[in-house]
Amino acid sequence: MANYKLEIEYDGTKYKGWQRLENSGPTIQGKIEGVLTQLLDESIEIIGSGRTDAGVHALGQVANFKTKQDLPSRKILEYLNQYLPEDIVVKKVEAVDERFHSRIKAVNKTYLYKIWNGSVPSAIHRKFSYHVPGNLDVKAMIEGGSYLVGKHDFIAFSSLKKIKKSTEREIYKVDITRSGNLIEIAINGEGFLYNMVRIIVGTLINIGQGKVPPDAIQHILKSKDRQLAGETVPPQGLFLVKVNYDIK
Amino acid sequence: MANYKLEIEYDGTKYKGWQRLENSGPTIQGKIEGVLTQLLDESIEIIGSGRTDAGVHALGQVANFKTKQDLPSRKILEYLNQYLPEDIVVKKVEAVDERFHSRIKAVNKTYLYKIWNGSVPSAIHRKFSYHVPGNLDVKAMIEGGSYLVGKHDFIAFSSLKKIKKSTEREIYKVDITRSGNLIEIAINGEGFLYNMVRIIVGTLINIGQGKVPPDAIQHILKSKDRQLAGETVPPQGLFLVKVNYDIK
Repeated sequence: MANYKLEIEYDGTKYKGWQRLENSGPTIQGKIEGVLTQLLDESIEIIGSGRTDAGVHALGQVANFKTKQDLPSRKILEYLNQYLPEDIVVKKVEAVDERFHSRIKAVNKTYLYKIWNGSVPSAIHRKFSYHVPGNLDVKAMIEGGSYLVGKHDFIAFSSLKKIKKSTEREIYKVDITRSGNLIEIAINGEGFLYNMVRIIVGTLINIGQGKVPPDAIQHILKSKDRQLAGETVPPQGLFLVKVNYDIK
Repeated sequence: MANYKLEIEYDGTKYKGWQRLENSGPTIQGKIEGVLTQLLDESIEIIGSGRTDAGVHALGQVANFKTKQDLPSRKILEYLNQYLPEDIVVKKVEAVDERFHSRIKAVNKTYLYKIWNGSVPSAIHRKFSYHVPGNLDVKAMIEGGSYLVGKHDFIAFSSLKKIKKSTEREIYKVDITRSGNLIEIAINGEGFLYNMVRIIVGTLINIGQGKVPPDAIQHILKSKDRQLAGETVPPQGLFLVKVNYDIK
């Protein structure tokens, strides 16, 4: 059994998200499976490192699939990029160990959120950023972000309805930078709850606007109360940048 | 008579270029004039600093228009951004001297061209860059670019058919940088002939690929022969960044 790992970039604008859905519009998983099924002439299911929501982008989503056929990785890469729409690009295909599983074996992930902090929206960046006019104090946002680092129960920063599993996660790094009107928030962690990055960003925006102080993050974490955190910012500013693994 | 100066950002993907055309699809000029005519209830003609071709973008195109009405700049800005499609954004509106003319009074302009130099195309950058796979020697391109600086006859770097006026132009600065897979070529000059930036970039790509040496630029300038320069690279990598003026 061959196991292939894919690294995928996509512009999520037109998609209903990563996960294949019946009768609800195009998905990234569905498009890639369609082309692989056509190439291999057998029904292929790909496993993503995690779902991304409708409208969210990826620079380095990872997925894997198994097949009894043994094809050169290069051929799979070329075939996929020939038949996929141009808003989905496979950057890399590798034959990997049979035990590789893109979700279970993921060690940490990096997400990036882009805020367009100009007085008017940006025509060029509009599909890849969230427009927040008015003053944003990036220094306060950086301080707020520092309180996220470490192992915490992030339930207050999640849209989870039913909670079965642990909501504790470890965040390793939060990087916030400004370049002109563009503010970029990069977060690396072992894993993320549903909508966690988008609610963290909504909270950091509240901090940047001076609505709450930077150490409100500590208070919100402790409270475990979704109502105290900021709003879920829109999907078009979010990018899944990289998924890291120990083994191949 | 009031004279208003507009600074405009646009995503040129869906447009037939800047210049209003009859029966040939949407143009940036046409869209803006339509909204201004609606606001002012008189036929408004805007003068652009120069035309941009179909598919070319702008971060800072400048235009001006005259009207007998006296409206606050802020009101014009808000009305335009309310009624323009989201791929055209007016960044600034200013009441200026009656003698201000966005084309005639322009002192210099900066254009930017983005090359995506990855082995596969980019899903995210595809509408705002030109994909050139394979090795590109940026150092050689920088050397090539340095020979463009100064006052030269740029006729070899132009698609002009009939030549009536002088084809001499002065280039002040050529900046070429790489960041990951993205190569950016910024050119500042007093003015540019038709397709000049796109043919210069095509020639710099030939240099980066080692097809011609960096000092071929000097030879091509001297030859005045369009056939010796590179191809006209596609429009989606090109941005009109800034137009500078002495007076307001």
